[in-house]
Amino acid sequence: MDLDAFEVGYDIPARLGQRIDEVVTPALIVDLDHFERNLRRMRDFIERTGLRLRAHAKTHKSADIALLQISEGGACGICCQKVSEAEALVRAGVRDILVSNEVWGEARIDRLARLAATARIIVCSDDIRSVHELNEAAQRHGSTLEVLVEIDCGAHRCGVEPGAAAVELARAVEKAPSLRFEGLQAYQGSLQHIEDPVERRRQATSAAQATRAVVEMLAVAGIECRTVGGAGTGSFAMDASLGVINELQCGSYIFMDAHYDRVEEEGGGRPGGMENSLFVFAGVMSTAIAGRPVCDAGLKAIAVDSGLPRVDRPGVSYLRASDEHGVLDDPDHVLDLGDWVRLVPGHCDPTCNLHDWYVTIRGERVEALWPVTARGKLF
Amino acid sequence: MDLDAFEVGYDIPARLGQRIDEVVTPALIVDLDHFERNLRRMRDFIERTGLRLRAHAKTHKSADIALLQISEGGACGICCQKVSEAEALVRAGVRDILVSNEVWGEARIDRLARLAATARIIVCSDDIRSVHELNEAAQRHGSTLEVLVEIDCGAHRCGVEPGAAAVELARAVEKAPSLRFEGLQAYQGSLQHIEDPVERRRQATSAAQATRAVVEMLAVAGIECRTVGGAGTGSFAMDASLGVINELQCGSYIFMDAHYDRVEEEGGGRPGGMENSLFVFAGVMSTAIAGRPVCDAGLKAIAVDSGLPRVDRPGVSYLRASDEHGVLDDPDHVLDLGDWVRLVPGHCDPTCNLHDWYVTIRGERVEALWPVTARGKLF
Repeated sequence: MDLDAFEVGYDIPARLGQRIDEVVTPALIVDLDHFERNLRRMRDFIERTGLRLRAHAKTHKSADIALLQISEGGACGICCQKVSEAEALVRAGVRDILVSNEVWGEARIDRLARLAATARIIVCSDDIRSVHELNEAAQRHGSTLEVLVEIDCGAHRCGVEPGAAAVELARAVEKAPSLRFEGLQAYQGSLQHIEDPVERRRQATSAAQATRAVVEMLAVAGIECRTVGGAGTGSFAMDASLGVINELQCGSYIFMDAHYDRVEEEGGGRPGGMENSLFVFAGVMSTAIAGRPVCDAGLKAIAVDSGLPRVDRPGVSYLRASDEHGVLDDPDHVLDLGDWVRLVPGHCDPTCNLHDWYVTIRGERVEALWPVTARGKLF
Repeated sequence: MDLDAFEVGYDIPARLGQRIDEVVTPALIVDLDHFERNLRRMRDFIERTGLRLRAHAKTHKSADIALLQISEGGACGICCQKVSEAEALVRAGVRDILVSNEVWGEARIDRLARLAATARIIVCSDDIRSVHELNEAAQRHGSTLEVLVEIDCGAHRCGVEPGAAAVELARAVEKAPSLRFEGLQAYQGSLQHIEDPVERRRQATSAAQATRAVVEMLAVAGIECRTVGGAGTGSFAMDASLGVINELQCGSYIFMDAHYDRVEEEGGGRPGGMENSLFVFAGVMSTAIAGRPVCDAGLKAIAVDSGLPRVDRPGVSYLRASDEHGVLDDPDHVLDLGDWVRLVPGHCDPTCNLHDWYVTIRGERVEALWPVTARGKLF
């Protein structure tokens, strides 16, 4: 990508080699030292436990990061949530992708089956009708789609009941000539942010028991689960100890966020010992009201669905967001016009989706710009 | 723009002429009949009151819509919030733009002054330091920047106190050879969504009194305000009756949203009699849990900062959002896999910023695709 063709301040927020105080705000920043430590922490965990990691690209939507997770971070492949995300990642060179979601509709399923002719594609299903459509599309393209039957192990979103319905669906997949039954999707999303580790383990245990029961029912029916996929950043250490899930789908671990600041690991600390590597740099644009400086990162630069950003500077906090403004509380008057602050997003995934570029920094310098490859890939 | 070069389902959500049930979800939809009625309602209001309209493009970030607001909708020009938004709109042919916001930092101010060599550019200031920087940059580019002094008339975000500080700043602008003092920015953002019209008028009246006092202080000092800018979709009828603001900066009126559903006009009805013209079409992707269908529009397709979306179908409501999912409540089981629903966003501005395209429909057919020209223009 020819970055020289892009204008700083219009197309891109920085040039390589610039000092961090020259980056145009608001900008999405990856601190590479922190990022690489998270990458290694997860790789070490995978090596120690013998589980597989299928890192979730819904968090970052970046081909650069996905490829690093595979080459350096111990990942066997990547998850994403949308067919268009998978297409963007395959175009960038990722060759083993789970669309960890239901895919429906003739045109969309057709695209997925076409993609499976050039990459390993796994997809979830919780409906017999989609099994038929997936099979027909794969036949049409001469490809094979691998399928995880999604079970509802407590999040009450997608997924069939963890019982006979799952076995019935698995049988239908096994019978379909252009599909391959790969196992179960057993992600319990709603427990990831339970702050108390005791309650989190209680719910993770309940999800694991439900999942184990289905694995055993399938075994009785002669159907093997090569993959039992699930786990997130809030639960992966617990899930590993519970011994049912064999492929971890963590995404946020690579960045972390202010919501995960509040989630306590068993034995203390943050989940997996991970640290914040993602920040939004914001500039102070108005100091007209004393003690209430206004920064340039509002709702269009940082997601607030899981709480306001944390300001990475002692004594300063983020009071309220409007579309293009963030009002700060600065009782000690440490900030002046043109100063910048480092914000830790409340929720990393939708924050990344607001930006076109990651500005990666090493110490005080911009090292690389990574495009948010699948930004806005909603389909 | 050669739409034929784009792939439906990857680059774009629809082809022209398609039926609405063929649009790839989640998609951002403009119902043109509703949209054009809103455009006309505002133009009629402007003609009736003799005020000016400077329509706010922060809502839609679309050059197509901005140009329609000028050619058909009675607007004298456009507002936006960021220099990069202004650049995108000037590139698309808009020639009269107010950046209704503070602009700071040498590089950013330089870009603004450069832009003023090809279009009329007005900008806000609440700081003497930015006045000097704006003047130097305009001198460098041989351009003239027009300046509105922003006053804090109740929102407590940007803006100097409505008194001597504003006069002092106006004098500094008047003295600067490459700046022109154009008037005041008197936008009271925090009253726009006050649901009760009595309380809303009380606060609008207070803002108008503060603004009028500054206009009079300036007159005593021999400084004329050609423009007193402000008003939003929630307050413009009141602001017009209060007789201080002469240039309305409404943005949301063109689309409306579920938050404005709850704002009552004096005499009843919705502000200005405007109607929803913006929707997110979402598809039902899972019906595994009875009565709780899951749609494909979550946090990355629809903003929830001002409340959850309203489902435009009797008996169905939107219960909770995760990144790529929306769980619906459907007690009468009217929705099946593959059905689509029309969602009214809780907040139009940040929703539009999540999408690359507006799919405009007329009745049951796709009429045009409009790019979200300044999507992601954060700088």
